[in-house]
Amino acid sequence: MTVTGAAHVFTLSQARSSLIPLLAGRKTKSFRCTPIPAMATAEVKLSQDELKKQAAWKAVEYVKSGMKLGLGTGSTAAFAVDKIGQLLKDGTLTDIVGVPTSIRTYEQALSLGIPLATLDEVSELDLAIDGADEVDPNLHVVKGRGGALLREKMVELASKKFVCIVDESKLVQGLGGSKDAMPVEIVQFCWKYNLNRLQNLPELAGGVAKLRMDGDKPYVTDNSNYIVDLYFEEPIKDAHAAAEAISKLTGVVDHGLFMDMVDVCIVARANGIEVQEK
Amino acid sequence: MTVTGAAHVFTLSQARSSLIPLLAGRKTKSFRCTPIPAMATAEVKLSQDELKKQAAWKAVEYVKSGMKLGLGTGSTAAFAVDKIGQLLKDGTLTDIVGVPTSIRTYEQALSLGIPLATLDEVSELDLAIDGADEVDPNLHVVKGRGGALLREKMVELASKKFVCIVDESKLVQGLGGSKDAMPVEIVQFCWKYNLNRLQNLPELAGGVAKLRMDGDKPYVTDNSNYIVDLYFEEPIKDAHAAAEAISKLTGVVDHGLFMDMVDVCIVARANGIEVQEK
Repeated sequence: MTVTGAAHVFTLSQARSSLIPLLAGRKTKSFRCTPIPAMATAEVKLSQDELKKQAAWKAVEYVKSGMKLGLGTGSTAAFAVDKIGQLLKDGTLTDIVGVPTSIRTYEQALSLGIPLATLDEVSELDLAIDGADEVDPNLHVVKGRGGALLREKMVELASKKFVCIVDESKLVQGLGGSKDAMPVEIVQFCWKYNLNRLQNLPELAGGVAKLRMDGDKPYVTDNSNYIVDLYFEEPIKDAHAAAEAISKLTGVVDHGLFMDMVDVCIVARANGIEVQEK
Repeated sequence: MTVTGAAHVFTLSQARSSLIPLLAGRKTKSFRCTPIPAMATAEVKLSQDELKKQAAWKAVEYVKSGMKLGLGTGSTAAFAVDKIGQLLKDGTLTDIVGVPTSIRTYEQALSLGIPLATLDEVSELDLAIDGADEVDPNLHVVKGRGGALLREKMVELASKKFVCIVDESKLVQGLGGSKDAMPVEIVQFCWKYNLNRLQNLPELAGGVAKLRMDGDKPYVTDNSNYIVDLYFEEPIKDAHAAAEAISKLTGVVDHGLFMDMVDVCIVARANGIEVQEK
């Protein structure tokens, strides 16, 4: 799909549209970006929240009436959910069903009057909009620092299109490159054994595995599992191989490497919104 | 390893050895069976419990002093655990550490004075002995009707050798062929969605998926998950492909297809003990 960003941005972000300048091109497999010529020279510094909002609103341009939507979790996704609620309220959008990826998003969407369902009722979604913790140049992403990786992955895999929204601080040259956590959800049973096995996987060489804590107790996911966070000094060499090796370990429930899932990534940069497509 | 069954059976099963006749050969990739010529014509009908005990005792012949052992769960495995406890008590075996696959086995082994550990403390085991729900001619097995599939699989994968013990009622021409349950452990979140996805996997064509119940509530595993039981009219065509397809579904924690894991299968038949090796 070709992004016709400019017109949409003007429609949806209205007053804020004057802040959107031309974007610096970033290499992806298939990069498309429609600049806004008149704004090309604008140089306005936006707050991180403003950037997140811009990315979120841009993502909401992909939403059409009648769609079944995966609703992401986190501060950036929350702006998208807000916007969808607003567009439903003013009649711009109709006949939307949202499938939230967390209790928090469920509550937010409910308060906005967005009709909701679960994958049990609606198993195929048209579009999911969600944030990410890291995005690499091929639009593979790390998610799950918030602990909801499994639900997010289930919902986003059920979506025909996954639009990822981030601010530029999330861009990395390779997954693991932020030096922040890459989470793996494991069963509680013999967690030390599985932590050590993760630590020793050749595909995760250089990674340091730590059990995620919640005060002085292990953090427990919505699925009653633990999370092992992996920290890397250098990006993971082959994230596909890593994802496969992690998944093969019996006792691993899921992991935060979302490979080949993102169709569109909307990046809010200090100097504008960039749309990257697979 | 070549099984030198006769002598061992005489040593360990002692009084019962006279009941062990020559076995009917059953085709496996590499079938080895040492008959007991003198007993070849014996025709003594054993009860199912006697058969299970014979298989279990035969398996215990693989146990040597100093070994780290995976201790299985179920009525057949319980006979093996009993025997190990007895051999420790009478000094035939020394320096054994057992890693139980369930609370029930833990309690049994504890009561017998078998020194115990978990995979957290002992990550590599020499030998695991456990029962199975189905065994096919290539020694691929179905396990987990008792609900402990994940722990069993973790322990048995950590073992250098896995000796499976069954009575002949568990033998099938293809996995799924018993028409009884092949369990899949899934997260509780959106279980209907995952049940339907399992039901619709082409690799499980013909299977009927049912949520396992415990009275009027879903059965919950030790890992706080649900179990979907799959029932087949005909054996699964390609169990390797089925195992892979099931594992790939996000939300699946584990499944009861134990492929390429069994090294030795000891089958208690009405007319004797048969040892099948990979």
